[in-house]
Amino acid sequence: MPRNAFYAQSGGVTATINASAAAVIETARRFPRQIGKVLAGRNGILGALDEDLIDTSLEAPAAIRALRHTPGGAFGSCRYKLKDGDTGHGDFARLLEVFRAHDIGFFFYNGGNDSADTCLKVARLAEAQGYPLAAVHVPKTVDNDLPVTDNSPGFGSVAKYIATSMREAGLDVESMAKTSTRVFVLEVMGRHAGWITAAAGLAQSKAGEAPHLLLFPEIRFDEAAFLARVDDAVRRYGHCAIAVSEGLQGADGNFLSEAGLKDAFGHAQLGGVAPVIATLVRGRLAHKVHWAVADYLQRSARHIASRTDLDQSYAVGKAAVELAVTGHTAVMPAIVRVSSRPYRWKVGVAPLDKVANVERKLPRDFISPDGFHITPKCRRYLEPLIAGEAYPPYDRGLPDYVRLKNRSVRRRTPARAAH
Amino acid sequence: MPRNAFYAQSGGVTATINASAAAVIETARRFPRQIGKVLAGRNGILGALDEDLIDTSLEAPAAIRALRHTPGGAFGSCRYKLKDGDTGHGDFARLLEVFRAHDIGFFFYNGGNDSADTCLKVARLAEAQGYPLAAVHVPKTVDNDLPVTDNSPGFGSVAKYIATSMREAGLDVESMAKTSTRVFVLEVMGRHAGWITAAAGLAQSKAGEAPHLLLFPEIRFDEAAFLARVDDAVRRYGHCAIAVSEGLQGADGNFLSEAGLKDAFGHAQLGGVAPVIATLVRGRLAHKVHWAVADYLQRSARHIASRTDLDQSYAVGKAAVELAVTGHTAVMPAIVRVSSRPYRWKVGVAPLDKVANVERKLPRDFISPDGFHITPKCRRYLEPLIAGEAYPPYDRGLPDYVRLKNRSVRRRTPARAAH
Repeated sequence: MPRNAFYAQSGGVTATINASAAAVIETARRFPRQIGKVLAGRNGILGALDEDLIDTSLEAPAAIRALRHTPGGAFGSCRYKLKDGDTGHGDFARLLEVFRAHDIGFFFYNGGNDSADTCLKVARLAEAQGYPLAAVHVPKTVDNDLPVTDNSPGFGSVAKYIATSMREAGLDVESMAKTSTRVFVLEVMGRHAGWITAAAGLAQSKAGEAPHLLLFPEIRFDEAAFLARVDDAVRRYGHCAIAVSEGLQGADGNFLSEAGLKDAFGHAQLGGVAPVIATLVRGRLAHKVHWAVADYLQRSARHIASRTDLDQSYAVGKAAVELAVTGHTAVMPAIVRVSSRPYRWKVGVAPLDKVANVERKLPRDFISPDGFHITPKCRRYLEPLIAGEAYPPYDRGLPDYVRLKNRSVRRRTPARAAH
Repeated sequence: MPRNAFYAQSGGVTATINASAAAVIETARRFPRQIGKVLAGRNGILGALDEDLIDTSLEAPAAIRALRHTPGGAFGSCRYKLKDGDTGHGDFARLLEVFRAHDIGFFFYNGGNDSADTCLKVARLAEAQGYPLAAVHVPKTVDNDLPVTDNSPGFGSVAKYIATSMREAGLDVESMAKTSTRVFVLEVMGRHAGWITAAAGLAQSKAGEAPHLLLFPEIRFDEAAFLARVDDAVRRYGHCAIAVSEGLQGADGNFLSEAGLKDAFGHAQLGGVAPVIATLVRGRLAHKVHWAVADYLQRSARHIASRTDLDQSYAVGKAAVELAVTGHTAVMPAIVRVSSRPYRWKVGVAPLDKVANVERKLPRDFISPDGFHITPKCRRYLEPLIAGEAYPPYDRGLPDYVRLKNRSVRRRTPARAAH
């Protein structure tokens, strides 16, 4: 008898997480003897705890196919860490209660480090309780900080967006530098790891081109050295383009974005390291400065997704189902790099205890010795990840993204108290 | 005997200004009996005053063709208003001195309101001095604030970028709203006119979708009404996405971006109305807020240019040359809308005295009565301008933008003092 599957999206969404969802659903439909319905959690794992399960079998094949080109999280995601994992009570016990009620035999959890840990705990608890469950983690995170896998699906598309935007804005500021803006600052995501900042470096194809400087979260901000480099770039090239990580830290280890900006009423200003850097440059070097904060634009930019990233996002979703139906649990499909030039890759398997809660930072030898740019080794690693285009369809000038029906399954357990 | 042409880019650059440059150069090459070389000003009109003229005849046809897909200003632009236009001395006299020295018979000035005025003054001065010159303005501005023409080339591409980005980020915040970000703020350009803000409104295909609110520079900011609307959107739809013009003004007529943000050292913060709105929403409604500032990314985003805009940018450059060789001066090619659905347009001619220094704002009936969204009439106007895609070629994952040789012509006049 086929058993149902549960799929949930976790944490920050990406331009390609829905491609993994499409892969899970489409692949599950190819195993009707093992897998019944794929039920998706509304707003991620909360959908399981609240028993608000979306019946994906009611969605037309064309709608599921359209998830490949639709950003955001089609079923909703959440930032919620399950409680009481070790006791077998609390959220974890509730999860198994709902799984039992809906005969869930397969659990696909699409997320980053945290959700890998959750997925592993659920697998262990099910095993301890003798509940048959294949729990497979589907990797996703724009931060590219998952270990074992060559890269994290979702990252390649952000990287392509940021490198493209930096190249374009660099041409703009270069045009204006004679009488107007000389310095441009682009703030990018990646609070703890500088992978996205590094990706901005790909925009530069030769010396003198944007970006001239990268400010990594891995390198403490040295104000004097930085200002000297900005000054040097403006003297040599007439302008200076900078990518800065939202997680840039000062010599004291504090985030520069929390450097105490206040509005006229004394309220603390909400985030933003780009304006801090811009204010510094204008104050010290008296250049006209422009700054941009890409924020959600970068991780939802499906219109300029990387074909490689899209293919890999789909591949890990497909592999997750294939692993589950062949008896694997507590694992994650991982991208394995076979070669860089040309880029060849395949999907391997990683045990979740090697993945859970391990954060991969940018290696020091990916950052130039002076700390302000990427090395050729880094470029060799990154370049294949942004290769290829995968445009969405357009309708009246705008990307034609799909919206699913997202109908809920009838509840089978008593409602629980609000968490 | 053919006479030479002078082409210059003025003011803020766009994703398609180089397409107009390509059109001027390619079309001029088709009139060898009237036009000799096209000389371009390095850094705009300053290139003429400094007699730093770029010889575009040294560029290969393929390089000129590649300008169609390259953002920024290929010859450099500037923000510089010529002095002493009415006296026949100063900058204007210098301009004609350089024109005489290089036998310039055609002047193509690619810019907005200011440059239309300059172009007109140059035409009048040349006529007054009996110097034969065809001075034609080529329209361009992301702000869409030029009169007479249906739209300003360059605007359609920003509009497409902003509407796409808003749709994408809207899907993102909608996915996260259950436990995390509920309100998203995107700051867009257009300090005096709300055309780009209005374009964000195109992202919404039905009620409940992003953007939920638009904050126009034409509508004074009403804090209480705004907060009530944000609260309402979050209650109804779970989230609220907002586009705000950099030129939003408070009830006192001051820019909100200059609302007195200070860093920890008391320095005035550099611009940014999005963080001001974000801080307000978090402070009053206690929702988690994210904000983005698109800045130069929006006007250089050639990777998602509008096909319509690209075609029109090329068409006005081509028409400018055709007008000049048929004896017109002190004119500007203008886009004439023949019909909206389907969109049909042609190129007409506008006398420059109808264009110079006239700023077209968003009509009140393009803004909904409550001041927070666009009307169907506005949508009917805007929609055709973002229609169609025009992707650049890619190389190793990134748009393959061209860089010209930009070799200077030998000087023929004594160097002038620095201005």
